[in-house]
Amino acid sequence: MGLLVVGSVALDTVETPFGKAEDALGGSAVFFACAGSLLHPVQMVGVVGRDYPMAQLKRLTERGVDLRGVTVGDGESFRWAGKYGFDLNTRETLETRLGVFANFRPQIPEEFRGARYVFLGNIDPELQLEVLEQVRAPKLVACDTMNYWIHGKRTTLLKLLERVDVLLLNDSEIRELTGDWHIHRAARWIIERGPRYVVIKQGEHGAVLVGEGKIFYVPAFPLEDVFDPTGAGDSFAGGFMGHLARTDNVTLPNLRLAMVYGSSMGSFAVERFSVQRFDEIKLDDVRARVRAYRELVHFELEPEG
Amino acid sequence: MGLLVVGSVALDTVETPFGKAEDALGGSAVFFACAGSLLHPVQMVGVVGRDYPMAQLKRLTERGVDLRGVTVGDGESFRWAGKYGFDLNTRETLETRLGVFANFRPQIPEEFRGARYVFLGNIDPELQLEVLEQVRAPKLVACDTMNYWIHGKRTTLLKLLERVDVLLLNDSEIRELTGDWHIHRAARWIIERGPRYVVIKQGEHGAVLVGEGKIFYVPAFPLEDVFDPTGAGDSFAGGFMGHLARTDNVTLPNLRLAMVYGSSMGSFAVERFSVQRFDEIKLDDVRARVRAYRELVHFELEPEG
Repeated sequence: MGLLVVGSVALDTVETPFGKAEDALGGSAVFFACAGSLLHPVQMVGVVGRDYPMAQLKRLTERGVDLRGVTVGDGESFRWAGKYGFDLNTRETLETRLGVFANFRPQIPEEFRGARYVFLGNIDPELQLEVLEQVRAPKLVACDTMNYWIHGKRTTLLKLLERVDVLLLNDSEIRELTGDWHIHRAARWIIERGPRYVVIKQGEHGAVLVGEGKIFYVPAFPLEDVFDPTGAGDSFAGGFMGHLARTDNVTLPNLRLAMVYGSSMGSFAVERFSVQRFDEIKLDDVRARVRAYRELVHFELEPEG
Repeated sequence: MGLLVVGSVALDTVETPFGKAEDALGGSAVFFACAGSLLHPVQMVGVVGRDYPMAQLKRLTERGVDLRGVTVGDGESFRWAGKYGFDLNTRETLETRLGVFANFRPQIPEEFRGARYVFLGNIDPELQLEVLEQVRAPKLVACDTMNYWIHGKRTTLLKLLERVDVLLLNDSEIRELTGDWHIHRAARWIIERGPRYVVIKQGEHGAVLVGEGKIFYVPAFPLEDVFDPTGAGDSFAGGFMGHLARTDNVTLPNLRLAMVYGSSMGSFAVERFSVQRFDEIKLDDVRARVRAYRELVHFELEPEG
């Protein structure tokens, strides 16, 4: 069950009230792969510049990330710099240097084209469509996007949605895409346009799955300390898709569980800078957090006294 | 198992983007009683002015609300007027006229003093303490408060907390009371000062129960339309306490279920102006919503394909 991710491979400089990380591994494909590979091997497609710390990236292969789809372009790597406010909810982008990412045209290696689970990280929807032209018969395609594309490439994005099974986006994105502030109504608007499911990521307020006339809600995990929110959404996607690929089961009950795996990965991601936390944990830690989620939300209709 | 509420009995004038209600039944004791009495008889203590629409209030007796603790003072009833913004999250208080409520000194009728479940609605903590002096042997005391008392009567409030089992408050209140923005850490601060449990009401983001080293989370129910948020917190308290009194079981598993009953009542309250929604529903409707909550949050660790 090939699990493919196409997205950015970046160098992030992040400042939070708790410290600073410079030129650390980042980008949607990297966070996705670090989280996802805890559950299932990941095939990664992206581009880096000649200055990228390849030794660090190559360490991902030890975890089961296949980097044969990562090309080295002639130029600088994609760099993003941002700063978080005290409550970690407000983020200021200090710098975005696209570098080689500006001319990224995803080329899916022949070995990856049979992937059954495909995650289209947040890139130009035209490129996301190009990826779908290259994969043969995916069982489930999930897709992320952002306000920049919703605004600038709306027609292409809507065309893409016809071929997407799960759209993941956050509150402000779903409101901008649909023009509806009511997120459940907005999700139905999207479902009428292609995707069977919509996942609305709400940061510290959890995540919602809407589809098949049902709504499933997962809170954010109550962490003692949130260190750096960068990459939480892509780590969520890695856990979500990693669980689906590992179990090869796309029924609604299993999508619910995938939401919990996704939320667990998002909660790990924010406990350290960059992808550091994923160096420290193993599948057993993820499973323990999934069980802790049950404890957090489950209740019995008739508890014993 | 007597269930006692002491709180305000008011006339609310509320304007939302969807309409306006003038001089409608309101106040913490009224919302609590309307919700709670769907689950268990309620004994109400409060004060109204000579202008209060007693015929409307007396209709609550048909549902099992005992009004023998409601006195008629010499003066005007407590009136509150407020206006909600488009997203219903921001509320502007247009007018507060305390009337007879300004001199309210709760007198608990002899028939109510054996109450086993006591809810102290949001009034001066000195009065809340006076209530506790009058009840004989409550099994569980829950208490609400607000920033006004946290700020102005902090010492008394801390003294009260020593005698409270469950403190209910919202995000901003718990942060102001404890000086800690991290709500779970803040809840532990409170638990060290008396209450066994803290319930943090987060409006559209649900509610959290903290206690016995555990955290339990209930999301807000995904409603198609929210009409008027007034009274959601007191309706929550009514559902929470009503369930506990009905089952007479204060174990943690049953407190979890009480959180779901509370959230269900809060979700009903906001579907209409004032307490109107409680006129339309019965215990079966509440139970159906509790079951819908299970559907919303439960997941299986190993779902079948």
